Amino acid sequence: MYKFYYAPGTCAVASHIALEEAGADYQVERLDFKANQQQSPEYLKVNPKGRVPALVTDYGTLTETPAILAYIAQTFPKAKLAPLDDAFAFAQVQAFNSYLCSSVHVAHAHKGRGYRWATEETSYADMKRMVPKSMGAAFALIEKGMLKGPWVMGEQYTVCDPYLYTISLWLEGDGVDLKTLPNVADHMKRMAERPAVKRVMAAQQAKAA
Amino acid sequence: MYKFYYAPGTCAVASHIALEEAGADYQVERLDFKANQQQSPEYLKVNPKGRVPALVTDYGTLTETPAILAYIAQTFPKAKLAPLDDAFAFAQVQAFNSYLCSSVHVAHAHKGRGYRWATEETSYADMKRMVPKSMGAAFALIEKGMLKGPWVMGEQYTVCDPYLYTISLWLEGDGVDLKTLPNVADHMKRMAERPAVKRVMAAQQAKAA
Repeated sequence: MYKFYYAPGTCAVASHIALEEAGADYQVERLDFKANQQQSPEYLKVNPKGRVPALVTDYGTLTETPAILAYIAQTFPKAKLAPLDDAFAFAQVQAFNSYLCSSVHVAHAHKGRGYRWATEETSYADMKRMVPKSMGAAFALIEKGMLKGPWVMGEQYTVCDPYLYTISLWLEGDGVDLKTLPNVADHMKRMAERPAVKRVMAAQQAKAA
Repeated sequence: MYKFYYAPGTCAVASHIALEEAGADYQVERLDFKANQQQSPEYLKVNPKGRVPALVTDYGTLTETPAILAYIAQTFPKAKLAPLDDAFAFAQVQAFNSYLCSSVHVAHAHKGRGYRWATEETSYADMKRMVPKSMGAAFALIEKGMLKGPWVMGEQYTVCDPYLYTISLWLEGDGVDLKTLPNVADHMKRMAERPAVKRVMAAQQAKAA
């Protein structure tokens, strides 16, 4: 039994979907970002970085979306969430997820988390103005080649797909027009139809108990 | 035979060291960042993202440091650069490398690459001022717990070590006092003594032909 810490709408959606696709036995712990629960002393014991997601396993706690996604894929091989027997294909999965975490998620974060990298309100406003352009450029690369279709890696659904879907959900709020990204928009539709995705979105959108 | 694209002093140092530790058969292609070669039409065919490193293999091209590092570890199991038979331990390696790429390298990049996220000179100056604090905070977490010692993961040298070393080399320029980070400073010394590291640093520092 895993314990999975998340906050609704964050990048933790990706790992949440992967757990559900894998048929993993897990319980969720929802953090309230508005109350800054991710910085509470209790949560910092779970993840000293004060971020989500965090996956508590029998062996210890894992953080960082690409690591959690690859771990779920390796731990539930029957779910076929990554090409585990082909080191190059597995590395391509990892490269895609690494790009999402280090470039695409980071571009998005400049809309609302500028305080990580600057201190002036004028800088935050400047950063916010750039987000449609930086996210648009990143997704243009995804649209034109990285997303092979119908899934990110082609015919095989992998842990790249829930991660791309999670970040695609931010595009409208980031000022990127989905009409310019027909392949990404189609991918979002395909994802939204998956039963595992429906269950996770319903759980994340349900009111806190 | 791999072809490895890098620019001296960039995060590509990490993969370069891993190739050398693995005893891989590779040739290097050095890019001149001052001449903006990473954005040349020729290089964009290799890596449309216009970044280094890129590793050209018989199966295709790989990008993104964490993906390349895990690929080298998996492809050269005799070099024992990752705990390949233990999914949780492998995930810890991945989580550490993912933190370096998505948080630590990104904090550093705000010193000289602010144009990725903003347009105003005042914003760039603001970002630069923050780097000693953001890099200092990230390395305080590494110092206090993530770096188990003597290597990142403890007794076993892994692909986390060249990656941490690569980014540690930036600390002085980023305004972080290594005297506040004795474990990190010791790790740098241990790394600098390794023959593979000496060979890579000599090759990267050699004048371009």
